[in-house]
Amino acid sequence: MFKVHQKDPESFARVGTLSTPHGEIETPTFMAVGTLASVKGIWPAQLRTAGAGIILGNTYHLALRPGADLVEAAGGLHRFCGWDGPMLTDSGGFQVFSLKTMRKITEAGVKFRSHIDGSALELSPESSMKIQNQLGADIIMAFDECPELPCDDVVMNASLERTGRWLQRCKQAHVRSDQALFGIVQGGLNVDLRKKSLQLTEAVDLPGIAIGGLSVGETRLERLSVLEALAAELPSSKPHYLMGVGTPLDLVESVAHGIDMFDCVLPTREGRHGVAYTSRGKIRIKNQSNKSSLEPLDPNCVCPACQSFSKAYLRHLFVAGEALGPMSLSLHNLTYYFKLMHDIRSAIREQRFGQLLADMRSLYLNAEPNL
Amino acid sequence: MFKVHQKDPESFARVGTLSTPHGEIETPTFMAVGTLASVKGIWPAQLRTAGAGIILGNTYHLALRPGADLVEAAGGLHRFCGWDGPMLTDSGGFQVFSLKTMRKITEAGVKFRSHIDGSALELSPESSMKIQNQLGADIIMAFDECPELPCDDVVMNASLERTGRWLQRCKQAHVRSDQALFGIVQGGLNVDLRKKSLQLTEAVDLPGIAIGGLSVGETRLERLSVLEALAAELPSSKPHYLMGVGTPLDLVESVAHGIDMFDCVLPTREGRHGVAYTSRGKIRIKNQSNKSSLEPLDPNCVCPACQSFSKAYLRHLFVAGEALGPMSLSLHNLTYYFKLMHDIRSAIREQRFGQLLADMRSLYLNAEPNL
Repeated sequence: MFKVHQKDPESFARVGTLSTPHGEIETPTFMAVGTLASVKGIWPAQLRTAGAGIILGNTYHLALRPGADLVEAAGGLHRFCGWDGPMLTDSGGFQVFSLKTMRKITEAGVKFRSHIDGSALELSPESSMKIQNQLGADIIMAFDECPELPCDDVVMNASLERTGRWLQRCKQAHVRSDQALFGIVQGGLNVDLRKKSLQLTEAVDLPGIAIGGLSVGETRLERLSVLEALAAELPSSKPHYLMGVGTPLDLVESVAHGIDMFDCVLPTREGRHGVAYTSRGKIRIKNQSNKSSLEPLDPNCVCPACQSFSKAYLRHLFVAGEALGPMSLSLHNLTYYFKLMHDIRSAIREQRFGQLLADMRSLYLNAEPNL
Repeated sequence: MFKVHQKDPESFARVGTLSTPHGEIETPTFMAVGTLASVKGIWPAQLRTAGAGIILGNTYHLALRPGADLVEAAGGLHRFCGWDGPMLTDSGGFQVFSLKTMRKITEAGVKFRSHIDGSALELSPESSMKIQNQLGADIIMAFDECPELPCDDVVMNASLERTGRWLQRCKQAHVRSDQALFGIVQGGLNVDLRKKSLQLTEAVDLPGIAIGGLSVGETRLERLSVLEALAAELPSSKPHYLMGVGTPLDLVESVAHGIDMFDCVLPTREGRHGVAYTSRGKIRIKNQSNKSSLEPLDPNCVCPACQSFSKAYLRHLFVAGEALGPMSLSLHNLTYYFKLMHDIRSAIREQRFGQLLADMRSLYLNAEPNL
């Protein structure tokens, strides 16, 4: 299901194709997050036009609302939400571990209380697989334990060993051959534990491998050091998915360490809050400096907002509380992310990925422009 | 600028064409309301596809945010909001009279306080014309006095006489020949006062005539009795615009009395609140009965929501607080309204308008279906 077409000679970056029952995706790819079976504020047809390849849904959230039974009865997640392209669901693990005070972890699984109505619920390798089988995404994720950082090495070691055992139970419980199950490497910021978790994950041979437990408060350099240590160890024939990452610079730097897939709420969340990513850096649209600007957000962008609206109009929409403001910046940011992934693939193919990496570092690592 | 093509032999309904600098509109027409230079939750391209002819902007709101100077500097309302079709602005009169405790009315105009920051402002025939000239819509409205109902006849008479004097000042102050100024008939529910106001309005010969001061709490039958009394008196060569009306049934019944133009926030406001208008009546999407329904809102609708989404999915979006829910029902309702206006025009052309009127009465006047 995964084929690497070209490798960058100076890094671990590579261009590939991921085949799924709902179509092929060129990698490296960025997955827009549709937590509740909707990418917030965006129409499915707009995602397609913006260049989306694969959309992510969150098992924890979907299991609570509207429930896996309803999604299954509706013909699965794709039909339910009107997106006929590839989809991926996470396992719910990350979300239930984020509940902290509302959960109890045992070898069997996690008992927790719904953040919506407080009702008592359980998630385990078996129930996560059952729900994800019902949701019917093209790629499903193993139910893993995701410890909070900082984490003591002994605790982390016990946790990743449990994640390894849970992975075997996931494989056992997973019944749909049309869905690809990916394992998840844990281990926090400890490189040795990461390598051990990778071995445990690879012991259960699966079609894809994910790196979890990052993007949880660590610094950029801490994350990069983990990715750097793992890059040569990751099975090169499988797609590598870095979960929950990140900023545009994070994406390019992670691609250099062999990452093929990303997901993150950043482009839509920042968009809703009035922050736009552009070819000239970040723009805070509500800034006074945009009040009378008749320029588009980004003259290099083809999104509907940049094609029709000035910064002055977009700022007005945000100041006046008009829904079209957040809709515009969310769609713009996703378009920027998809275009960035396209540019990354082109740069790898044309052996100029190193230059792209340098350009992105100079754009985003300098004192942040405050446009 | 206005041409009547065909009249219904059994009512005052007629089909016509309204020509503006930004294109022609077939009448009867329904104007979507873009209060703050945005039809809430809808992209301009979607309005076009849905069948929108002319969009309305609110002078009061636009004067406060983002300000007429900015809109003018941006090249006018059309360019500012990315809608290159016809537009109309109201005068601000209705809004400032709605402020009640925050305003003071004199012959000169209205002093009021901004609902946003409480700052002291004034609106008069002259300043409303100046602002509307700056905004640059194709059709602009006279600054009128709009008394609250019920209203004593003596007070109403004095008010409509003032509206008549203000209309002359509006005509005097209006400087752009590319914008058509419409006068507004007031008079509340008193038919004699309405006719007097119509005479005062017609005394200032203008290319269009509006009926204001309805849709302010009167009953459907009270409104219809006013329209019935005016129908034969309205100048047949000019477009007749009924301001702020209404439900689908209101539109059809008003067309029977010779109305050519409407505007109303209902389709978008109801849509945001989960109410959909369909060929089978109103649907409250959050009702339990829609929880597992895999049918579209309306099998006869071509809007993107009806083409891709089930009622179960739309209900889920509303229950989960996802923006795509209100976006979907707003766009659906506008599509329904534009289609209704299209059907009204076809029915008049094909001499079956009476049947359409009867069908709509039987759909909406029976006990409201609670789907």
